[in-house]
Amino acid sequence: MDRDNKVSITVIRRLPKYYRYLGELLRKGINRVSSQELSNMTGFTASQIRQDLNNFGGFGQQGYGYNVEELHTQLGKILGLDKVYKTVIAGAGNLGQAVANYKGFEDAGFKILSLFDKNPKLIGLKIRDLEIRDVDELADFIVENEVEIGIITTPKENAQEIADIYMKSGIKGIWNFAPADLKVNEDIIIENVHLNESLFTLSYFLNNKSDYVNS
Amino acid sequence: MDRDNKVSITVIRRLPKYYRYLGELLRKGINRVSSQELSNMTGFTASQIRQDLNNFGGFGQQGYGYNVEELHTQLGKILGLDKVYKTVIAGAGNLGQAVANYKGFEDAGFKILSLFDKNPKLIGLKIRDLEIRDVDELADFIVENEVEIGIITTPKENAQEIADIYMKSGIKGIWNFAPADLKVNEDIIIENVHLNESLFTLSYFLNNKSDYVNS
Repeated sequence: MDRDNKVSITVIRRLPKYYRYLGELLRKGINRVSSQELSNMTGFTASQIRQDLNNFGGFGQQGYGYNVEELHTQLGKILGLDKVYKTVIAGAGNLGQAVANYKGFEDAGFKILSLFDKNPKLIGLKIRDLEIRDVDELADFIVENEVEIGIITTPKENAQEIADIYMKSGIKGIWNFAPADLKVNEDIIIENVHLNESLFTLSYFLNNKSDYVNS
Repeated sequence: MDRDNKVSITVIRRLPKYYRYLGELLRKGINRVSSQELSNMTGFTASQIRQDLNNFGGFGQQGYGYNVEELHTQLGKILGLDKVYKTVIAGAGNLGQAVANYKGFEDAGFKILSLFDKNPKLIGLKIRDLEIRDVDELADFIVENEVEIGIITTPKENAQEIADIYMKSGIKGIWNFAPADLKVNEDIIIENVHLNESLFTLSYFLNNKSDYVNS
């Protein structure tokens, strides 16, 4: 994509939200939406939404708004959801199993090939049709299967060790659930799920109800 | 807190991140930090950070920066982390058990009292010292124990039903992991964990590496 400037992280993080709401409109058979209607759904201002989308080329038409299906398709492409990604999960405990069982990821093109753990009680078990393998096989498995995304659902203490394996075996992106700040080469994308931050936002609103906007 | 205007959701969502980084500085024994240093850690601009914190009163001093411990304490209060919250978990499958096992929540003042499920194979089991109870007992349990926060880790299909129970029994905030848009009264705070949105942000960056800033 030809753009002069970086798109800011706050804009990028709103894109999956727009994509989700547009998907809902699509499922309801709604073909057209204004930035004001998107604003009512998302809680962001209409002008913010127009600005955000203008970063990627103007999709709307003045006086018409947005074509829901087209915008949904374009946002899907921008988000890279028109591709299939091979992924593995390191850490086959409760959280790893929960992620492996979550159908939404596979539907969106994130194909989980296998789970890995060091616990002998878990190795050899199956989650859905996915075998839990010995973490000692992780590096070879990634190379052989050209895995692109590595998920980390280990305890905090093991997260960096897994990140190192991912880095050495050519993983391009890491989806990290462990509450640890991982150190990896700059060319590897890390996306952290900080559950604490979400919970703390909830407690903020419990204590500052007047700031709350349901979105 | 006396403020004329709502603090915007994007500002609020940055607060837990500041809190986390300040906590790390504290653990490293660092007493003082400039907005520029915070900018380097978080990836937000220094002026953004100063603006964000000014929403809650100016904590910094020009030429000095911020006192780490004081700012951490104040942000903790703003986030409501100086209190203890009683919580329950509905949905005692993998995800519910993962949340119940996560020590960080309890350390931050979120005390899980019990898990609930409708699966007879789970009812009566214990996660740590927490009993899994029949979901039929959920409403009474909340009322009797004055539970404030209800966590939803059920499948999507059961999420609204649980939200209804939470609403009727006086829950103040819902932390929802189910990929469903819940309908509740306006006076109940909902915080959704949309794992899809995080995963889609990762795939965005895999396809737009020049926008990526590791933070």
